[in-house]
Amino acid sequence: MSGELLRAGILGATGAVGQRFVSMLSRHQLFRIERLMASSRSAGKPFSTAVEWLMPGDPDPRLAGMIVSDCRPTDDLDLVFSSLPADEAVNIEPAFARAGIPVISNTRSHRMASDVPLIIPEVNPGHLDLIRVQQARWKSRGYIVTNPNCSTIAMALALAPIHRVFGIEKVIVSTAQAVSGAGYPGLSVMSMLDNAVPYIRDEEPKLESEPRKIFGTIDGDHIRSSPMVISAGCTRVAVRDGHLMHISFSLSKPATETEIRRCWETFVPEISNLSLPLCPERSVQYLDGDDRPQPLLDRDRGAGMTVCIGRLRSCPVLGWKCVALGHNTIRGAAGGAILVAELLAARGWITAG
Amino acid sequence: MSGELLRAGILGATGAVGQRFVSMLSRHQLFRIERLMASSRSAGKPFSTAVEWLMPGDPDPRLAGMIVSDCRPTDDLDLVFSSLPADEAVNIEPAFARAGIPVISNTRSHRMASDVPLIIPEVNPGHLDLIRVQQARWKSRGYIVTNPNCSTIAMALALAPIHRVFGIEKVIVSTAQAVSGAGYPGLSVMSMLDNAVPYIRDEEPKLESEPRKIFGTIDGDHIRSSPMVISAGCTRVAVRDGHLMHISFSLSKPATETEIRRCWETFVPEISNLSLPLCPERSVQYLDGDDRPQPLLDRDRGAGMTVCIGRLRSCPVLGWKCVALGHNTIRGAAGGAILVAELLAARGWITAG
Amino acid sequence: MSGELLRAGILGATGAVGQRFVSMLSRHQLFRIERLMASSRSAGKPFSTAVEWLMPGDPDPRLAGMIVSDCRPTDDLDLVFSSLPADEAVNIEPAFARAGIPVISNTRSHRMASDVPLIIPEVNPGHLDLIRVQQARWKSRGYIVTNPNCSTIAMALALAPIHRVFGIEKVIVSTAQAVSGAGYPGLSVMSMLDNAVPYIRDEEPKLESEPRKIFGTIDGDHIRSSPMVISAGCTRVAVRDGHLMHISFSLSKPATETEIRRCWETFVPEISNLSLPLCPERSVQYLDGDDRPQPLLDRDRGAGMTVCIGRLRSCPVLGWKCVALGHNTIRGAAGGAILVAELLAARGWITAG
Amino acid sequence: MSGELLRAGILGATGAVGQRFVSMLSRHQLFRIERLMASSRSAGKPFSTAVEWLMPGDPDPRLAGMIVSDCRPTDDLDLVFSSLPADEAVNIEPAFARAGIPVISNTRSHRMASDVPLIIPEVNPGHLDLIRVQQARWKSRGYIVTNPNCSTIAMALALAPIHRVFGIEKVIVSTAQAVSGAGYPGLSVMSMLDNAVPYIRDEEPKLESEPRKIFGTIDGDHIRSSPMVISAGCTRVAVRDGHLMHISFSLSKPATETEIRRCWETFVPEISNLSLPLCPERSVQYLDGDDRPQPLLDRDRGAGMTVCIGRLRSCPVLGWKCVALGHNTIRGAAGGAILVAELLAARGWITAG
Repeated sequence: MSGELLRAGILGATGAVGQRFVSMLSRHQLFRIERLMASSRSAGKPFSTAVEWLMPGDPDPRLAGMIVSDCRPTDDLDLVFSSLPADEAVNIEPAFARAGIPVISNTRSHRMASDVPLIIPEVNPGHLDLIRVQQARWKSRGYIVTNPNCSTIAMALALAPIHRVFGIEKVIVSTAQAVSGAGYPGLSVMSMLDNAVPYIRDEEPKLESEPRKIFGTIDGDHIRSSPMVISAGCTRVAVRDGHLMHISFSLSKPATETEIRRCWETFVPEISNLSLPLCPERSVQYLDGDDRPQPLLDRDRGAGMTVCIGRLRSCPVLGWKCVALGHNTIRGAAGGAILVAELLAARGWITAG
Repeated sequence: MSGELLRAGILGATGAVGQRFVSMLSRHQLFRIERLMASSRSAGKPFSTAVEWLMPGDPDPRLAGMIVSDCRPTDDLDLVFSSLPADEAVNIEPAFARAGIPVISNTRSHRMASDVPLIIPEVNPGHLDLIRVQQARWKSRGYIVTNPNCSTIAMALALAPIHRVFGIEKVIVSTAQAVSGAGYPGLSVMSMLDNAVPYIRDEEPKLESEPRKIFGTIDGDHIRSSPMVISAGCTRVAVRDGHLMHISFSLSKPATETEIRRCWETFVPEISNLSLPLCPERSVQYLDGDDRPQPLLDRDRGAGMTVCIGRLRSCPVLGWKCVALGHNTIRGAAGGAILVAELLAARGWITAG
Repeated sequence: MSGELLRAGILGATGAVGQRFVSMLSRHQLFRIERLMASSRSAGKPFSTAVEWLMPGDPDPRLAGMIVSDCRPTDDLDLVFSSLPADEAVNIEPAFARAGIPVISNTRSHRMASDVPLIIPEVNPGHLDLIRVQQARWKSRGYIVTNPNCSTIAMALALAPIHRVFGIEKVIVSTAQAVSGAGYPGLSVMSMLDNAVPYIRDEEPKLESEPRKIFGTIDGDHIRSSPMVISAGCTRVAVRDGHLMHISFSLSKPATETEIRRCWETFVPEISNLSLPLCPERSVQYLDGDDRPQPLLDRDRGAGMTVCIGRLRSCPVLGWKCVALGHNTIRGAAGGAILVAELLAARGWITAG
Repeated sequence: MSGELLRAGILGATGAVGQRFVSMLSRHQLFRIERLMASSRSAGKPFSTAVEWLMPGDPDPRLAGMIVSDCRPTDDLDLVFSSLPADEAVNIEPAFARAGIPVISNTRSHRMASDVPLIIPEVNPGHLDLIRVQQARWKSRGYIVTNPNCSTIAMALALAPIHRVFGIEKVIVSTAQAVSGAGYPGLSVMSMLDNAVPYIRDEEPKLESEPRKIFGTIDGDHIRSSPMVISAGCTRVAVRDGHLMHISFSLSKPATETEIRRCWETFVPEISNLSLPLCPERSVQYLDGDDRPQPLLDRDRGAGMTVCIGRLRSCPVLGWKCVALGHNTIRGAAGGAILVAELLAARGWITAG
């Protein structure tokens, strides 16, 4: 039976997100880790030696002993997941696509490229049609599909059920983001203990642009961005996992509080009939408590794949405001990318070689 | 010489803000602590026994041995500072005003009363004229003057230099507030370790209404609020002191980035010629770093009385956005209230009995 | 099938440890929660209303709707778990025992009573024989069995495999204990953010006396304490769960480092053949890393039931030293008590009524 | 007047301890910073550009603009303070000594060298006589004097008043050490948020050996170590500044609790008559509270130069135990080293060139 699983490689396997991929894929129904790939500093060593393992418990023994490879395409892979640093991804990911291997990337390098789908499976699965444009470009069966930035995913998934019914025009979002988003070692404890930092490099532009692509429409060989206008202010706080955000937004059609809440409560994504393993029972969940969602209490809902929303109330400036929360290393990184891969497999875009 | 100092009482002296009052007034140039007052649970005990002292070091020996009194007016006081719980302040503060004793209060109970000034000395010192209306009401020389909420002070002081030149119309503010704002014991460590809470009871309404009064104008016997529209989202984070906030705002007149920065850099408050002891050299300070201000690094500027601003940039929704920071228990509580009292003394509203 | 489960009550169900009982027993193979009991303040309300739920996710829907009862014995219970405050447990627990209901208590009130077993199932299961003495005293089928203090459990389980082979004579232990040990709300964040507190009320005496009872021997109707001499220094640190400790110890027989490590690596507790549901594969686990065990990385091993040990090395004063870690609210509280109940059920001390 | 100040250089000025030196020396009564020296990466840049400034507020403007130099001896210096990394100090510090410049070093490289004094001014000022041995070795007026490890200073100063009266024979110490001890960036927030790490590289051997040298006696051209036996276990905790420790110790003469406390309360170091600027009023201070000292509340006593002690009680294993606390970057690093330099200047070992 394990012979029938799709053979997956992980690019950047020793990093913080890479470890999350290893952890989440060690017993997956569709994928089997075939190769762990990392920089030349790690290549040639057993994974357990190359990695500074940060997940609770120990890595799966089979993977702990696997020798880490260089980041080069090989013919024993049906797909690769990438969490490479952006400057490495820029060349390595296309090399895999050109070699015929689908790349599901959590890195920002190719997200805004015109023919690269930027996918939240519950929101814009139709954008996968761009794969054909890419395959023509690479002259190959390979392609790159990207997973949005961790805060984008939480915000876009929180807003999607409202957007498709009432049309969101303007958004002001302010985040309180977890330290795991900076990777490992990432931030010094000297910078975060008894502190908050109102700036995260490159984060605000991503949060202001990526949702416009996600909510955009296919126009021939590229995505036409949504006219939605977004303004973001990002803050790093002393929380391990879970990006929290206050969102104010305006609608193009009038709506009542009950109607907006009902959008979340009745949201059934198009992909829900596919029974994808990582697709949570509820992709969005509205919580009633005055002080919810909270990272500590709510980030693990739906095994970390549910985006939680709370505190819907009127905003005197833009009309409405609410709070949203998403697990940044699960839904916002490894889990989000694996769900994309599950969708690709279900739609026949990934097949056993 | 100490015989010439104004004799101050502290209402709620054992609480977290009360201790800050004790600490900041133990060697003040104008005021001398004459009485420490607290609830009946503490009254009759030496202060050092009644208090769970949270400030670094030990309390001043003279005050440590002082017997805590009940919260009743006596004739040995020229003024009182109040940091009583709101439900106690509602009756006790008027009792002092009626008895002829000026009350400078950090409590919310009377802030929005029509004839009670809500004062940031650098912003709206003229509102003190309302004292006369109050004195007529109390038929007494006493009155109540209030200090705004801790996040209001930081935001209103940050915006004041811009507002008086370009007119601010709309504001969306999202805060990351320190735990000391909840007092002691306040929040459980179980709620704040590895967590952030996107809700602070009663905080958002204060932040949406108090600045409108502060930026309002005297109209006979009351303040007519500014038409400024404010929307607030408040989050508690694991920071000891210092409220940080992202602020988006629209202006009624066009402005350039340079012009806005110049407002902060050249801000000279009307009270600056009074040489008030707690008035910092710079009431607002713009910081250049990409990632500033930060609570840990910047909250103590101007001995905690300077509000820091940074990251001015355009906001695609409202026009402009920036970050602001104020020390919540110094500028935002005890220090702010003492500066109000210094202003009252300088203007002759408080005199030796 | 659920009809055959033993019917359990939880005394103190709304507290921090009580919630852990609720969470761990909501799908247990042997026990079914029949009653949630708490103080009169909570009694009469649905559990979801009475509790300030601190566990991730939501409580089991069946239990969320269950009406909380007073702490009085009823005839629909086969056993009760108690996490009552000590001053309430002192009377309530005997009332249940007298009424014929076995009480498995996590509270300190009766731990040192001469005929009350203080049990770590892997260490001193034989002490359960004292139950007969108690039943005679209560003139009832009921009895009280206690779970040791959270740090005692970690230390005693870490030392047991060495003690039974080489005999431990003297111990100096210094702890770094998690904040969850103080319950909820427990400690103020103001006391723990950027701080450590070198004192935990009543903790050092427990850690110095309880292991002596656990390592003691039955002598007629009571336990004769072990002559082991223990000195403890306890510190609270900003960690959510997991009590960490440095332990120095002397042995009555010479041993090599290899021999000591082998004691841990080959430890097979007498109860291992009973297949108790919560008994972990390894009750103690030695970790090789220089800097292990760590609360964050190792507290959840064995689903929180494994005590981890590391850093065995010679101590120039007492001979040997090592580091140990136990999850204080699982192994050290609810999980430890449930394992005791599983052992009681396996040995026939708890039966369906 | 400033022309009469001794001209000081700082080796490693941009590091975490280096910044503390800069901050503490910017207005010192005896020393004037003449040169800021650092690695070639920083040399040639203005200090404000080369440094990632971590202290509150801004660096002194005169120093902010100073161009950072290479770490080479020049003839405009009367002394240098060193906080170089150990691998750099090993060659650079001797180069300065050989060039005739006294080096006061906070680095471990030369601490245990036989003719290098390891000094706590209140404890072993007489060890400075070794300077003559060194000067003969270097054939120069220069020499190296070292400041002990940060936890050694706190423990040795806490024990010194007892040791000289009653003789301490055995010590078991367990620390909870602040993150600033690891420098900047030092530890990842991912390793310290909700965690404690029971290991600090090279720390335990220092704590077991350095006090023996400090409490040793001069024997010709070297120090004969004290026979005191010390066992240490070191833990890193999420505290910014302040190393806390539980200490158990045995005495060579019988003592009562009152007698031991009196040693601390009446401790007058030999150097107290020299009026050294950084010498605190009390080098050791015993605190009465059950739960003191605590890093947050007590680390800044004596401007960070006082070591606090509390919780003296009997230890069933070694006789006595207590808790001690020292500010690791002030008393334990920059402040401790500056106090050594003040003593050297007072004794004529440093003179204007």
